[in-house]
Amino acid sequence: MWFGIDIGGTSVKTALVDDAGTPLIKRALPTDPERGPEDLCRRLAETLRAMADAAGVDRRAVRGAGVGVPAFLDLARGEVVEAINLGWRGVPLADLMADALGLPVAVDNDANLAALGEAWTGAGAGAETVLCATVGTGVGGGVVIHGRLHHGANGMAGEIGHMRVVREGGLPCNCGQTGCLETVASATAIVREARDRQDAGLLPPEERILGAEDVARLARSGHEPARWVMETAARWLGFGLAQAAVVLNPDVIVIGGGVSKAGDLLLAPARAAFSEYAQRLVAEATSVRLARLGNDAGVVGAARLAMQRA
Amino acid sequence: MWFGIDIGGTSVKTALVDDAGTPLIKRALPTDPERGPEDLCRRLAETLRAMADAAGVDRRAVRGAGVGVPAFLDLARGEVVEAINLGWRGVPLADLMADALGLPVAVDNDANLAALGEAWTGAGAGAETVLCATVGTGVGGGVVIHGRLHHGANGMAGEIGHMRVVREGGLPCNCGQTGCLETVASATAIVREARDRQDAGLLPPEERILGAEDVARLARSGHEPARWVMETAARWLGFGLAQAAVVLNPDVIVIGGGVSKAGDLLLAPARAAFSEYAQRLVAEATSVRLARLGNDAGVVGAARLAMQRA
Repeated sequence: MWFGIDIGGTSVKTALVDDAGTPLIKRALPTDPERGPEDLCRRLAETLRAMADAAGVDRRAVRGAGVGVPAFLDLARGEVVEAINLGWRGVPLADLMADALGLPVAVDNDANLAALGEAWTGAGAGAETVLCATVGTGVGGGVVIHGRLHHGANGMAGEIGHMRVVREGGLPCNCGQTGCLETVASATAIVREARDRQDAGLLPPEERILGAEDVARLARSGHEPARWVMETAARWLGFGLAQAAVVLNPDVIVIGGGVSKAGDLLLAPARAAFSEYAQRLVAEATSVRLARLGNDAGVVGAARLAMQRA
Repeated sequence: MWFGIDIGGTSVKTALVDDAGTPLIKRALPTDPERGPEDLCRRLAETLRAMADAAGVDRRAVRGAGVGVPAFLDLARGEVVEAINLGWRGVPLADLMADALGLPVAVDNDANLAALGEAWTGAGAGAETVLCATVGTGVGGGVVIHGRLHHGANGMAGEIGHMRVVREGGLPCNCGQTGCLETVASATAIVREARDRQDAGLLPPEERILGAEDVARLARSGHEPARWVMETAARWLGFGLAQAAVVLNPDVIVIGGGVSKAGDLLLAPARAAFSEYAQRLVAEATSVRLARLGNDAGVVGAARLAMQRA
């Protein structure tokens, strides 16, 4: 039994996960990052106790914890170098969490652990090389080879949101570059483009466009400009994935994250663009699929990491 | 002791390589691919015997052979699916070679084995994740993670020459796509661009431009259009490597192949473009270097593969 923890900007998802990757019981709590990491660790220790009781699991059967955090990490030390969304810097998270939980703790980036989860029991199960793209507010990703995360030199492997798909004159990205995949294929990009069309009178002014799901809804109800916005973002995604696939030659590419809930509205044009832009032999070898674990990917991957470190 | 074999379009390089990766004795023979693979295997068996005698090595001390071949391969079966430059199709090369040599034989793509060689004892020695780019007539590459080749789903990993750096309207590539890195950063591209400038009267008409080395020579002797051509190709290479680096996050990128003999004329602008186009944290973690093993990379990598398979 493993304690999987997935720290997000507003809520923390947790689960007790068995050795086969099945979440037996799940709980969520507010992140409240401004109360600091020690406070969160203390509340997670309480949650673990309560979950074990509720599930009738002997606390001693829980052998380790994995933690996903939206941060740039020092993986060797289990330290948060910088988590912009949480406002945390220089936090020795693995040590703090291990003290609070009384368990060995492994820490990794949240997108990496979602990738590990999907590669373990989700859409990439059984494949040797899996590339996961997480399409949400930004575009993240992770690389899993032979069942293990490939981190690369400093944990940035799979950060395909920062492939520069527009070489010159692209839009500015949060990372300081311009023209990153994230600037044209994220939920943020989809909402921006849809609002532009709304401002131009091409989409009904009374519709509230707050997220990519609103644009997907408008597309489904027959608004051509909304469909075009979704398709354009999906084609950029397919183009970026095609470039990544020539480097990595994955068996499976998994598309997850909030925007993936648009389903075929995202998948079909992303697949078409992938086939069009990827080298033929690479395209033939790669299956592009939607994520299967939904919100559980992070906690399942966190549990898997804990298991691999044990 | 290992027998490293590097099959090229015109000549086959061979070496007896010790366990530390040092080639003790080297021989080259003509490929003569039209005489067929059996004939080449027979000649390689003679070469091996002659080399062992010349080096005073007991033939039984040679424990295996590795073979690099410019081909699309069925790696599991050691079979050449198609080697366009050799005119071979459907050749069970590992089996033929094992029969002829009386040794276990491991076969891989030539660019992959050059990468493995550089990652073992060359410019990538000691690094965990190494991406090698081979810039010659085409642009090939290989990925080495924790000392072993990463092949991917069908052996296409690291084929960065077919990253589509020009999304629309690029030049046609041999692979059937357009806008591949190979169309703008290979020796072929350099020669084509230099000849265009020569035809336009921008380079001396009496200079024979047969290879990238001629363009490099003109650049060194102060011809600005030749320098511009080298720099432009190098910048495209740096741009392509920057995209690959966000996927793989390598510790070291090794640039080899014929064009890398241009040295700083290639390396300096490639490095500058890499830093400019790669995500900052990725760029900071990656060292971009020229290959060190020169023509030996293939045979050293082939020996390493044989050693890993033994």
